[in-house]
Amino acid sequence: MTANKKSEENEFDGVGLVKEERFHYQKPFSLEGGELEELELVYETYGELNDNGTNCVLVCHALTGDHHAAGYHTDKSEKPGWWHHLIGPDKPIDTNLFFVVCSNCLGACSGSTGPATHHPQFPEKTYGMTFPDFTIADMILAQKLLLEFLQVQCIEVVIGGSMGGMQALQWIVDYPNYVKKSLVIAATPRHSAQTIAFNEVGRRSILGDPHWQDGKYSKDAGPNIGLAVARMMAHITYLSDEGMEEKFGRDQQLDSSNAFEFKVESYLDHQGRKFVDRFDANTYLKLTKALDRFDLVGKDGLEKTFHNVKSRVLVIAFTSDWLYTPEQNKAIVTALHRLGKVASYLELDHMHGHDSFLINSDEFLRTVRAFMLGMDENEQKYQSEDRTGRSPTRYDVKKEADFKVIDEWVKPSERVLDLGCGTGHLLEYLRDNKNVFGLGVDFDLNKATACVARGVNVYQDDIRKVLSGLKDNSFDWVIFSRMVEELDQPGKVIMEALRVGKRVAVSFVNYAYWKNRYHFLRSGVRIKNDVHPNNWESSDLRNYFSVRDFELFCKEANRKDLTFTVGRKVFHRGDWMKTCKIFPNFRAGLAIYELIKK
Amino acid sequence: MTANKKSEENEFDGVGLVKEERFHYQKPFSLEGGELEELELVYETYGELNDNGTNCVLVCHALTGDHHAAGYHTDKSEKPGWWHHLIGPDKPIDTNLFFVVCSNCLGACSGSTGPATHHPQFPEKTYGMTFPDFTIADMILAQKLLLEFLQVQCIEVVIGGSMGGMQALQWIVDYPNYVKKSLVIAATPRHSAQTIAFNEVGRRSILGDPHWQDGKYSKDAGPNIGLAVARMMAHITYLSDEGMEEKFGRDQQLDSSNAFEFKVESYLDHQGRKFVDRFDANTYLKLTKALDRFDLVGKDGLEKTFHNVKSRVLVIAFTSDWLYTPEQNKAIVTALHRLGKVASYLELDHMHGHDSFLINSDEFLRTVRAFMLGMDENEQKYQSEDRTGRSPTRYDVKKEADFKVIDEWVKPSERVLDLGCGTGHLLEYLRDNKNVFGLGVDFDLNKATACVARGVNVYQDDIRKVLSGLKDNSFDWVIFSRMVEELDQPGKVIMEALRVGKRVAVSFVNYAYWKNRYHFLRSGVRIKNDVHPNNWESSDLRNYFSVRDFELFCKEANRKDLTFTVGRKVFHRGDWMKTCKIFPNFRAGLAIYELIKK
Repeated sequence: MTANKKSEENEFDGVGLVKEERFHYQKPFSLEGGELEELELVYETYGELNDNGTNCVLVCHALTGDHHAAGYHTDKSEKPGWWHHLIGPDKPIDTNLFFVVCSNCLGACSGSTGPATHHPQFPEKTYGMTFPDFTIADMILAQKLLLEFLQVQCIEVVIGGSMGGMQALQWIVDYPNYVKKSLVIAATPRHSAQTIAFNEVGRRSILGDPHWQDGKYSKDAGPNIGLAVARMMAHITYLSDEGMEEKFGRDQQLDSSNAFEFKVESYLDHQGRKFVDRFDANTYLKLTKALDRFDLVGKDGLEKTFHNVKSRVLVIAFTSDWLYTPEQNKAIVTALHRLGKVASYLELDHMHGHDSFLINSDEFLRTVRAFMLGMDENEQKYQSEDRTGRSPTRYDVKKEADFKVIDEWVKPSERVLDLGCGTGHLLEYLRDNKNVFGLGVDFDLNKATACVARGVNVYQDDIRKVLSGLKDNSFDWVIFSRMVEELDQPGKVIMEALRVGKRVAVSFVNYAYWKNRYHFLRSGVRIKNDVHPNNWESSDLRNYFSVRDFELFCKEANRKDLTFTVGRKVFHRGDWMKTCKIFPNFRAGLAIYELIKK
Repeated sequence: MTANKKSEENEFDGVGLVKEERFHYQKPFSLEGGELEELELVYETYGELNDNGTNCVLVCHALTGDHHAAGYHTDKSEKPGWWHHLIGPDKPIDTNLFFVVCSNCLGACSGSTGPATHHPQFPEKTYGMTFPDFTIADMILAQKLLLEFLQVQCIEVVIGGSMGGMQALQWIVDYPNYVKKSLVIAATPRHSAQTIAFNEVGRRSILGDPHWQDGKYSKDAGPNIGLAVARMMAHITYLSDEGMEEKFGRDQQLDSSNAFEFKVESYLDHQGRKFVDRFDANTYLKLTKALDRFDLVGKDGLEKTFHNVKSRVLVIAFTSDWLYTPEQNKAIVTALHRLGKVASYLELDHMHGHDSFLINSDEFLRTVRAFMLGMDENEQKYQSEDRTGRSPTRYDVKKEADFKVIDEWVKPSERVLDLGCGTGHLLEYLRDNKNVFGLGVDFDLNKATACVARGVNVYQDDIRKVLSGLKDNSFDWVIFSRMVEELDQPGKVIMEALRVGKRVAVSFVNYAYWKNRYHFLRSGVRIKNDVHPNNWESSDLRNYFSVRDFELFCKEANRKDLTFTVGRKVFHRGDWMKTCKIFPNFRAGLAIYELIKK
């Protein structure tokens, strides 16, 4: 019955039945720690390669993953591939458009050459610990041979989570001209001390198991207890505290000897046992060492490593991931931005910890789709719907009033940093019409995802943090479009923007506009209008100021350290349409200032 | 040479030379899982018991700690006791004042009766796994016997970190009349799923070691590898990611076979080996089970458990502690507050993770001292020094203007919640003069510590979070003393305060004071005066409002749901001294409103 049901589903569900293939490379292959006489990779593909060989999406799996990324192996398969929800016709990794390849890594144990496969010279023995030490870069080299064999001319997108994300990074470093886009999920530029520590404890557990036998165990008598303990511990690091609490809490159940035990204990025990059946201990030792040695930072820093990168990069992190933390993921994007590269950062507030990259959620699917497919129908629907349920105010309609001015000021091919970029309209316009290189910053995932779909670089984070990571003079323009009033101590942020940019454009609502003043004088109540739509009790904190406040700030800043001059100024009247020339502090509703670094 | 140096130091350093004592209880003693025929506890004491037997401080140690909390065992001792920096003459746990007792826990392995001690009936064997299962409550019972033997009439303060903190909690639950104060550090009301999971992996590692032999190993051939792996893993959970990164990063060194390994690997290896020499595997199994079973929440909740608590409680948590998180520590204080108990919460932003409670830092010493010794000379010095380096403004001098009004409104013995309580002056005054039960909330550790020293209950956290945890009508008064303007959407917070309190007092600076209005009309610049000391560019975000804004809010809120009426109103003129009766929105500098729940 189950089989029938599955087979019915298959006709409609994703890539359907799939089967694994083998690639045999019969020449010597060099690894970090030695040479292999030959190499075999097991892999799957979904979708078809186009005639030019240019539509390949390479999917890279995580530490204990494999090449079975989507579809079902048999009618009776219980579970589809591990990213089945992401890969298939009309899915974010759309097999109508892309030729998707996923191979079991070199050195792993699901069929590709590794410690658990048989040595070509001594077919009765596996490599075991004699398998040379290898690196993430070695994995990439092997994948490259496979892609050449498959007649792939270039990679459209390389994508992976966790160790897969590290591979997606290594690809853009090692083959900058071969990879157009890279989607790095829940990864890190190098293992932290804590991560190395967890791996080391896992290895000690295996090495301490007397069945390990210096790695010369037979297949059915390996260091199962040591490996299970390693897996149990690692499994905790893949989840979040909150996620575990929700799933297990302190629920208890009867164990095999009829005593009570916590549910989380038997769950972990089960994970350990299951793992021992499908994984090899020596492989675990070697693979975790490859991870620990992975270090794109090195002595000279990430920027040195990323110097030749040409691919468009998106990094996605998860707030609850404490294994490869948001900070570690951000370091990748910050380094790329310091080099002026094309990179974006999104952070999803999922509760599942590191394993969030395996979870099927609308938000995650949308972010991947935005990067893979841009402004497709799905994304247009997202953006046209008012997701907040709020109807647009006249303020929203007005909101591009300052864009026209800024557009006039920015010259073709300049570099523009837009702080508080929203959905990226300004940067998209400047890119399409002036070939401007733009970077937007916005704290809101929804807006930042819209930027990614537009092909606008975006950093989803606090603007102070992003600013502090950028280099001196690395932008021609830094733009504050009506967002200075949302900042504590805005003077410092403006000065920091003047470190990063050569010119700063500040547009703001003039709080001293005459109507505001007379209203306040007369009624002694906070004004309520398009720009200030809420009563005080429903308002967020703000730091409103006037044209004259701003002038005084400029004067004072100049008196102190003479770091900038005020360039052009444009004032709009209360309707934000017509300009006004005289008495701006009285007559202007909107002001746009150009600050020029001396 | 070292010995001489040490002995010289000892004369000046803390409690100096100490020696351990033994308490032998020769009667049967019941544990959760069975009975012991007799019991022995090893302990140390520092300072002297007073004639009434009322100056005892009981120090409780953590999972792998022991009774040697301060001083040196010999002239040659390399390390003093584990809390040496905290215990001694003139130290926070002042041995000039207190009789300090620390015993090795029942069931531990530093000399007290436990799995590693010899069975009285079979002196050739240790208890091993035949030692009955026990709980934190059993430990307390044994400590109580010791204190009775020492003729301690009551505990002045029970104090402990981690498992010691759980004991400090269990004490106030089991002996509410015997314990005056309890200082709970980096603890939890129960183990989370994640913590149980880590312990379980550690236990599996021991159980899986063939040398464990069902717990019947001989002393010199125990499951050392399994125990070392358990310790290595647990050790990671005691540190923070940031702390490990700073201490080890990716530094490498040569290992015994001259290959490179990461420093963190050899550090952990060393920790594992060292631990095996001083700890017993069966004890580790039993003790971690006692921790996992510890559950003050149970089916009926923490409030049920804490119902009879009479002690004054301070809970200290560390922001970087991911083993027993700030949230878990807060749950203790929230439950006590929901019951109207005397409890405070402080959170230290140390980077050392869970082990921060063992670190010698000025901030930590100050918090413990504030609770132990109140407004002593040290604390007075702290509070008189302007720690921010800022000289007091006229605004600071004015800042008690609304206290007088609030003082008039509050009746003797009422319950007052002060949101944004600062250093606790108002609540101290109300307590001393009107016997008021007060609870203050402030986000600032420095100010909150000052409250603790004053004996004022304080919750160091965001006021929204604290409010949401409190019960309906649990206070007679909720006070916002000039802090509503620091809130996003203050209307919601005021309504929430009206859920928790029967009356709400809101004092605020009237932004529509006539000088402000004319200043703004005339100059179009933000006003700068005592109350608004900064230019806009140096200002934090605020939500200023006027008397009339507030009146409109009250009217609107009433129109909607009729939940409160406006009671008394007091307006002060611009000098904040004289009151004004007419045209308050024009003439008042400061307004104080009473809102009364219907």
